[in-house]
Amino acid sequence: MKGKNEGQLKTAVVGSSGYTGGELLRILLNHPRVAVTAITSEKSAGRPIASLFPHLLNVTDLVCEAFDPSAIAKKADLVFLALPHVTAQGAAYELRKLGMKVVDLSADYRLSDPALYEKWYEHRHQYPELLNHAVYGLPELHRQEIRKAALIANPGCYPTGAILGLAPLIKNRMIDLASIVVDSKSGVSGAGRSPALAHHFPEVNEGLMAYKIGTHRHTPEIEQEISLLAGEKVTLSFTPHLVPMNRGILSTIYGLLAGKTDTGRMHALFEEFYKNEPFVRVLPPGEFPNVRNVRGSNFCDIGVYADHRTGRAVVVTAIDNLVKGASGQAVQNMNLMMGFDETEGLKAAGMFP
Amino acid sequence: MKGKNEGQLKTAVVGSSGYTGGELLRILLNHPRVAVTAITSEKSAGRPIASLFPHLLNVTDLVCEAFDPSAIAKKADLVFLALPHVTAQGAAYELRKLGMKVVDLSADYRLSDPALYEKWYEHRHQYPELLNHAVYGLPELHRQEIRKAALIANPGCYPTGAILGLAPLIKNRMIDLASIVVDSKSGVSGAGRSPALAHHFPEVNEGLMAYKIGTHRHTPEIEQEISLLAGEKVTLSFTPHLVPMNRGILSTIYGLLAGKTDTGRMHALFEEFYKNEPFVRVLPPGEFPNVRNVRGSNFCDIGVYADHRTGRAVVVTAIDNLVKGASGQAVQNMNLMMGFDETEGLKAAGMFP
Amino acid sequence: MKGKNEGQLKTAVVGSSGYTGGELLRILLNHPRVAVTAITSEKSAGRPIASLFPHLLNVTDLVCEAFDPSAIAKKADLVFLALPHVTAQGAAYELRKLGMKVVDLSADYRLSDPALYEKWYEHRHQYPELLNHAVYGLPELHRQEIRKAALIANPGCYPTGAILGLAPLIKNRMIDLASIVVDSKSGVSGAGRSPALAHHFPEVNEGLMAYKIGTHRHTPEIEQEISLLAGEKVTLSFTPHLVPMNRGILSTIYGLLAGKTDTGRMHALFEEFYKNEPFVRVLPPGEFPNVRNVRGSNFCDIGVYADHRTGRAVVVTAIDNLVKGASGQAVQNMNLMMGFDETEGLKAAGMFP
Amino acid sequence: MKGKNEGQLKTAVVGSSGYTGGELLRILLNHPRVAVTAITSEKSAGRPIASLFPHLLNVTDLVCEAFDPSAIAKKADLVFLALPHVTAQGAAYELRKLGMKVVDLSADYRLSDPALYEKWYEHRHQYPELLNHAVYGLPELHRQEIRKAALIANPGCYPTGAILGLAPLIKNRMIDLASIVVDSKSGVSGAGRSPALAHHFPEVNEGLMAYKIGTHRHTPEIEQEISLLAGEKVTLSFTPHLVPMNRGILSTIYGLLAGKTDTGRMHALFEEFYKNEPFVRVLPPGEFPNVRNVRGSNFCDIGVYADHRTGRAVVVTAIDNLVKGASGQAVQNMNLMMGFDETEGLKAAGMFP
Repeated sequence: MKGKNEGQLKTAVVGSSGYTGGELLRILLNHPRVAVTAITSEKSAGRPIASLFPHLLNVTDLVCEAFDPSAIAKKADLVFLALPHVTAQGAAYELRKLGMKVVDLSADYRLSDPALYEKWYEHRHQYPELLNHAVYGLPELHRQEIRKAALIANPGCYPTGAILGLAPLIKNRMIDLASIVVDSKSGVSGAGRSPALAHHFPEVNEGLMAYKIGTHRHTPEIEQEISLLAGEKVTLSFTPHLVPMNRGILSTIYGLLAGKTDTGRMHALFEEFYKNEPFVRVLPPGEFPNVRNVRGSNFCDIGVYADHRTGRAVVVTAIDNLVKGASGQAVQNMNLMMGFDETEGLKAAGMFP
Repeated sequence: MKGKNEGQLKTAVVGSSGYTGGELLRILLNHPRVAVTAITSEKSAGRPIASLFPHLLNVTDLVCEAFDPSAIAKKADLVFLALPHVTAQGAAYELRKLGMKVVDLSADYRLSDPALYEKWYEHRHQYPELLNHAVYGLPELHRQEIRKAALIANPGCYPTGAILGLAPLIKNRMIDLASIVVDSKSGVSGAGRSPALAHHFPEVNEGLMAYKIGTHRHTPEIEQEISLLAGEKVTLSFTPHLVPMNRGILSTIYGLLAGKTDTGRMHALFEEFYKNEPFVRVLPPGEFPNVRNVRGSNFCDIGVYADHRTGRAVVVTAIDNLVKGASGQAVQNMNLMMGFDETEGLKAAGMFP
Repeated sequence: MKGKNEGQLKTAVVGSSGYTGGELLRILLNHPRVAVTAITSEKSAGRPIASLFPHLLNVTDLVCEAFDPSAIAKKADLVFLALPHVTAQGAAYELRKLGMKVVDLSADYRLSDPALYEKWYEHRHQYPELLNHAVYGLPELHRQEIRKAALIANPGCYPTGAILGLAPLIKNRMIDLASIVVDSKSGVSGAGRSPALAHHFPEVNEGLMAYKIGTHRHTPEIEQEISLLAGEKVTLSFTPHLVPMNRGILSTIYGLLAGKTDTGRMHALFEEFYKNEPFVRVLPPGEFPNVRNVRGSNFCDIGVYADHRTGRAVVVTAIDNLVKGASGQAVQNMNLMMGFDETEGLKAAGMFP
Repeated sequence: MKGKNEGQLKTAVVGSSGYTGGELLRILLNHPRVAVTAITSEKSAGRPIASLFPHLLNVTDLVCEAFDPSAIAKKADLVFLALPHVTAQGAAYELRKLGMKVVDLSADYRLSDPALYEKWYEHRHQYPELLNHAVYGLPELHRQEIRKAALIANPGCYPTGAILGLAPLIKNRMIDLASIVVDSKSGVSGAGRSPALAHHFPEVNEGLMAYKIGTHRHTPEIEQEISLLAGEKVTLSFTPHLVPMNRGILSTIYGLLAGKTDTGRMHALFEEFYKNEPFVRVLPPGEFPNVRNVRGSNFCDIGVYADHRTGRAVVVTAIDNLVKGASGQAVQNMNLMMGFDETEGLKAAGMFP
């Protein structure tokens, strides 16, 4: 149902058959300033995207092609990479060589230290030089660099919720840096679209588990950004959990308060920190977020509590892992890179229930 | 995040605290040609709608007011009624007296025969005269009357899926009129937002049941429209079921084939019948709809099968009960009444997963 | 936690790594007259079953072995086959040759006509002679033959619910045999434990679809038993659906009433038909079953309605697809074959919520 | 289906219409040494329990009566109280006066300090004398006192999972007592059977939230038991969450390691601590629990991790909130009080999937 492309930014989605690819299309096809001119999928080259995503039937007649950087370069000016890590590395490099702007939704350009990448991802980074030019695409922290960037490392889903919950505390030195615990709970779409026993419906439904305790690859990403904010190296505990729902990440964050405070003051500080942010909603004291309220939207909802009994700050954040945690944030980054209104294409209310 | 109102149609949502009210707001707040200028809720008068629907926080700062027809008439030109039946009757009457266009999402003006209304709803209809002027708002069948109507009786959720699945069969006299069975399965949002033991989470989750067998009030509504199409009175079996999911209605429809046919010919006939319809997607032979593919969108997906073994036509339709089954269709009707593009505000892809 | 084996029947479960295998173990390990002495799994030979089914940790220390008929014959007297069809055929044959009693949960010995088997399962039946001796293990219809049988063809999940809902109608010639429609809705465990995109959590959750319309292999099985009851060949429509829940099948069954009747009389007839059945619960007039009420139990709940408007009988049945629809019924058959109390090991209440 | 009562302990369930009452019946009706001779419900006096819990149809024909202590005393020797707090207080007192053994599933006798009870429950405790005689019914910590007790305060669901995860750490002084965070996630049955908007299906499904942060009443209960083990007052952070599933609590527990250790040593210590416990399963290093594996069983599964990066111990526990978190543990306590085998009636495998 999308109109013609005159005057619109031409974009491509590379790796369009997974959930983040599908979500990019949902958002971009309704974006007033964008046209999607190419989509790729190695496995499904030649097939209409609507055969992979029947909800897109009659919404778009885009057909998947195999990834060919120079072919893409002819059709598009900005490319979203929704590829697995390692694979994305080279794709970003090729596209950048051809002068294209790139928003990479994989982890490949998120860790600025290639040694850290090698340690956690067990692959040597092939493009350390390009890595130097990548900008970590969390607008609430790096808006100015994003505006000027040509390669965005779009944040991971867990890091987005964790960092947004911690940033005001860290920036204001409100908590003991050695005391941070991030306990996150995610819907299953975060695990991708490839079938596996662990994500087979009867194994997940009515189930709940923690996984990759102490070893999840999003840990160094959270620590990198928190350390930057703190001005010193921060090590923290991060535990992801799998919850029987499609979308959403709730992160419950704990830290020992560095001084006396109460919920009201903590709340005021969060409000101040995020006062100009279009996609962060700091809830009133006494209210806490629910992932259902951000489903389908680019919002991050935040609730805060200063526990006088334990001397601990508790912050809860909720995002839609496929929107603010992936494709929505990618579009927000694109808007910034292109000088569009930051909320363009992202203004629609979420879907409840 | 909605812009200003100049040049936009001013609309009001009366009864905005239920799921169809919330869904109307989700759609209308993103509609380019509409402004929502008033919303009402008796229980929540004075409260911002975002306190009832936190997903609307920072999306709108509309505040509920008590329903007062003349106050509404000053603010809006077209009113959506998302009230319970019986209550809606008088509200529609008052608003029409004040010259407003009305789209009534309740059942009050759907049955053209007031005796039938009294029999199934156990209330005498108070405004039979107005009933005469109401148009049943299923655009696929009544588009021309809708364009000229001032009062639309927006179809029920089950009837929308049932009628769209049956219409091509009936119109083409393909099935024996005495043989029709409609077996429908609905998500729980169809039951409304009032808590009740039957819809308490642990009672519904991992449960599945039929209810109101042979007695559901949507039965005469389906029969009215099918009889109109058939040119004779049709009586059919309709069984609703409650499924542990939020949204969606899948209707599986059976009828004895009146003559020889096969799936290909049946499919061709459906394609022909719906060839100009923006919101009906007839799936290729061999494919059948899934409610997940229409979630959040105004589409009705249809799959057909001619069973040579049993001589029976089987048609399956899928809608989102809150969109094509309620609020989306209401907006589609508004578009027609106002001469807007019929798909305006309804073009966005649905949400999957 | 199970005691020693003296005086207990020695049983083996062949194919223990799937859901029906796991459910057999849940039931058998708590059966007072049975010991499980061997379990097999080709893929998991050498592994403790608790590594495949962690809910069995500390409940049993059984270890999977590869299937070897003569090894099994030394350890067990009765074998449950929870293998895929085709594979089960030869296993049953080998075990019977060794004199073992066999309860086959696959489809291989259900259709008494090998030509029908070949048509629907696209494999020639290799043991038509043995097929002649197999008994269809629906105790409500074939209790006496089951008691004397050495090879039981345990019914399919859908057929169990469908046949139990139809039998009293057919036996009493209450409905027109050409008018039968069976609309069934199943939880996802019925699709087995092998991961596939169609059963990946985010694809199923908040989804609902019909599948294999007119072509599901359980159709001839239902027709075989209904034809036997009717004394003539019956062809019927059967449509399975996939519902986002783990367990349960609800079948809604329609047929034109052959004569005048009402719900009270219909109910009385069902009560009479099932009056001695320990696992069939005919609900009072006006009540209808919910799969949540049979979860984990061997019950089949039935509700009936005679619709005077349409002249149609509507019957709804609910079973747990893994219990009465598979493993519980298999144990019920074992009890009958061994002369145990038919309800032994199956008396525990189901689990709600 | 339950046999006669000779030689069996006569028990009553007071407050049988809620989920813990229903679960007590599920377990007790299958307990070889117990007969249920009376059940009460104020709202449903005179009604068969199967009309409230249709899964119990044909399993029991028990009828609810109004609560009358002396009537109960004539019929039963041991009473389970499944009443709300405050209400349970007096009921326990009356029944004890009549010489009955009582297992109270409410919170009324859990906090040994009546001032603490008054602070958290906002009611003055009316029976401080009786409170002195109550034993906190966590067998893993208080088995000997339970054997001799006449009044058991059955632990709360969250405390059961939290305390069992912390006990070995505390007893062995492995963690810094000021550093404890318990992040718990519960299914919805924990919220009881009374309908409320917060537990209405479409509000919960596809939702996830924290609630009562820093203020949940189970906090002092956890602290009481941990303080006892520590030999000093411990204050800790406890955050409950609501997860879209029926049953299960997963608790993720964090504490700073007091000295050097690794996962292997931590695991060995947990194994040693629980080596004689029939209902605690310490998983091998590298494995973590999932609530699906304890569904319907009395097990508590525990996984441990010593995080060398952060110097933090992470322990994850999983229970079924209605079994080990309520009714199963109540039966375990009854077994101990009566000198039965502790596992009697609780040996059956859980239900998966």
